[in-house]
Amino acid sequence: MKILIDVMGGDNAPQVPVEAAVKAANELGVHMVLIGDTDTINNELKKYTYPEENISIVHASEVISNHEEPAKAVRRKKDASVVVAANLLKKGEGDAMISMGSTGALLTAGLLIVGRIKGILRPVLAATLPTAQGPKLLADSGANTNCRPMNLVQFGVMGDIYMRNLFGMENPRVALISNGEEEGKGDDLTKKAYPLMKDAPFNFIGNIEGRDIMEGNADVMVCDGFAGNIVLKTIEGMGSVINKKIKGIFKKNIITKIGALFVMGGIKEFKKSMDYREYGGAILLGCKKLVVKGHGSSDLKAAYSTIKQAKSFIDADVNGEIEEKLKLVAVEETEEA
Amino acid sequence: MKILIDVMGGDNAPQVPVEAAVKAANELGVHMVLIGDTDTINNELKKYTYPEENISIVHASEVISNHEEPAKAVRRKKDASVVVAANLLKKGEGDAMISMGSTGALLTAGLLIVGRIKGILRPVLAATLPTAQGPKLLADSGANTNCRPMNLVQFGVMGDIYMRNLFGMENPRVALISNGEEEGKGDDLTKKAYPLMKDAPFNFIGNIEGRDIMEGNADVMVCDGFAGNIVLKTIEGMGSVINKKIKGIFKKNIITKIGALFVMGGIKEFKKSMDYREYGGAILLGCKKLVVKGHGSSDLKAAYSTIKQAKSFIDADVNGEIEEKLKLVAVEETEEA
Repeated sequence: MKILIDVMGGDNAPQVPVEAAVKAANELGVHMVLIGDTDTINNELKKYTYPEENISIVHASEVISNHEEPAKAVRRKKDASVVVAANLLKKGEGDAMISMGSTGALLTAGLLIVGRIKGILRPVLAATLPTAQGPKLLADSGANTNCRPMNLVQFGVMGDIYMRNLFGMENPRVALISNGEEEGKGDDLTKKAYPLMKDAPFNFIGNIEGRDIMEGNADVMVCDGFAGNIVLKTIEGMGSVINKKIKGIFKKNIITKIGALFVMGGIKEFKKSMDYREYGGAILLGCKKLVVKGHGSSDLKAAYSTIKQAKSFIDADVNGEIEEKLKLVAVEETEEA
Repeated sequence: MKILIDVMGGDNAPQVPVEAAVKAANELGVHMVLIGDTDTINNELKKYTYPEENISIVHASEVISNHEEPAKAVRRKKDASVVVAANLLKKGEGDAMISMGSTGALLTAGLLIVGRIKGILRPVLAATLPTAQGPKLLADSGANTNCRPMNLVQFGVMGDIYMRNLFGMENPRVALISNGEEEGKGDDLTKKAYPLMKDAPFNFIGNIEGRDIMEGNADVMVCDGFAGNIVLKTIEGMGSVINKKIKGIFKKNIITKIGALFVMGGIKEFKKSMDYREYGGAILLGCKKLVVKGHGSSDLKAAYSTIKQAKSFIDADVNGEIEEKLKLVAVEETEEA
């Protein structure tokens, strides 16, 4: 198994992606292909020991930053690390690619270079949310800002297969995120998607509301990428605010510091259960090969989880199953950019 | 000042709305008009003492539940408490109305019976969010699921005036909630609204992302009611999950219970700062008279805050200012249902 990693992307590049790749080469026995500036990579690699046959380098002279317009940047910067990785993936020189850099650039590279599975109208960026009922999937978490009803149905198909294979669920509950539980509730998009979801080959449980998301009342939560991005980031922002507040309470004075010692075990366990780093990155489902977006601020733990997640995905042959299941969904058209 | 209250709506009706009305009659010197079944109301009123001149009753024989289709129910049930209240408000027999019952029915009654301020295309349901930087306004929080760009501009105008008057802000920061900060980010709606917001008579600071919401990085956060409802309920749901988890951690064993005693003061203060009950209900801005949606699960504290909020709103003559400011906004059309 060969996993391509863009080591130039993310807040902690190249240190963290390189270290995570070395760890994976050592512990998972995966062949890691590091893509980026050769000198920079070699400088990092000097710090570690690893089986030489499990690490290789492909040079890329450019980097796409978060501030560039993704579609333009991917077209112009032919030698950007994420573009080089996508081209290698397309040519079959890897089983998956990972980047912690610009989400837009990765999505564009996935869509335009790696390409979609036959029948998939739009790939979906699926993120794992830590909920009160364990990890659940948010699909789409930000790739597709303007969707059509059939896009949402396909997000459900892909999410269902993902949760069966990666989390061992037998019959994942698939729901539409809406502004009310009743079938008649929703915006134009979700109202049109609802009847199509009922006929789709998964366990559709209807609409869920915002308050069901962190309660974990569905296993696959389907929405367009505009709503999904806002949901995901609202949760992240609230988590960060609450975390700061609780730290402040515990650190207030000597009394509260003593109190904190008594409950710290539980608080740590709780924080671990809500930690996105446990679950790896967001998966771009529906491309011919696996494309994974690691969190931009990934530390070693998060980056390593992301590589492990990619390995599980390849082991499970999720893409093969998606192709099979798509045959059961009537697709209104075969091509859409 | 006369405030109309539908005492038949909400999870704790009629007890809580009646008790809150009595408290307001006693403590705020407001005349409260209680609308609902006369016998039921009289039974509740027996429990309390109050200045008789500050309480009156108007009989309504019907109630609209959360499970009814709002538009149909408002048209058919002419003697429903929320419909009777809206008709009294329209006739000038009150300065504001409050209901904790069906949101849809209240919005419909506000729109169809009370009517819009001249120039307002759609009223906005504005909810106060407790953030890291204090109370901020989410507009729309659920009234309008399918919006046009000019609707969002008007939500900004109304939100700006509300925050100036009710929270004493000098120059509220108005932002669009989107999936990225850059002007080019967004769905079709927010992309089209962005340039209009730049020209609008308020301090537009551009797009904010989900993570900015609970950080409080804008004072008026504008979005359509579909996204707004999901944001609001995602925050509520996450608050509830975290609350339960923290309680569980503190109650785990004798050690953690002791630890909890040391930090309980801070935790309580924090919970108070995040408590929606402190801020009253959601305001339907843009109707000819004030319409307020109290939280369905309001307890006495929340219901009383909602009445106080209505009083402040009337005192501030927010509607007069909205009419003035609207003249500065080019409205693409004058009527829209």
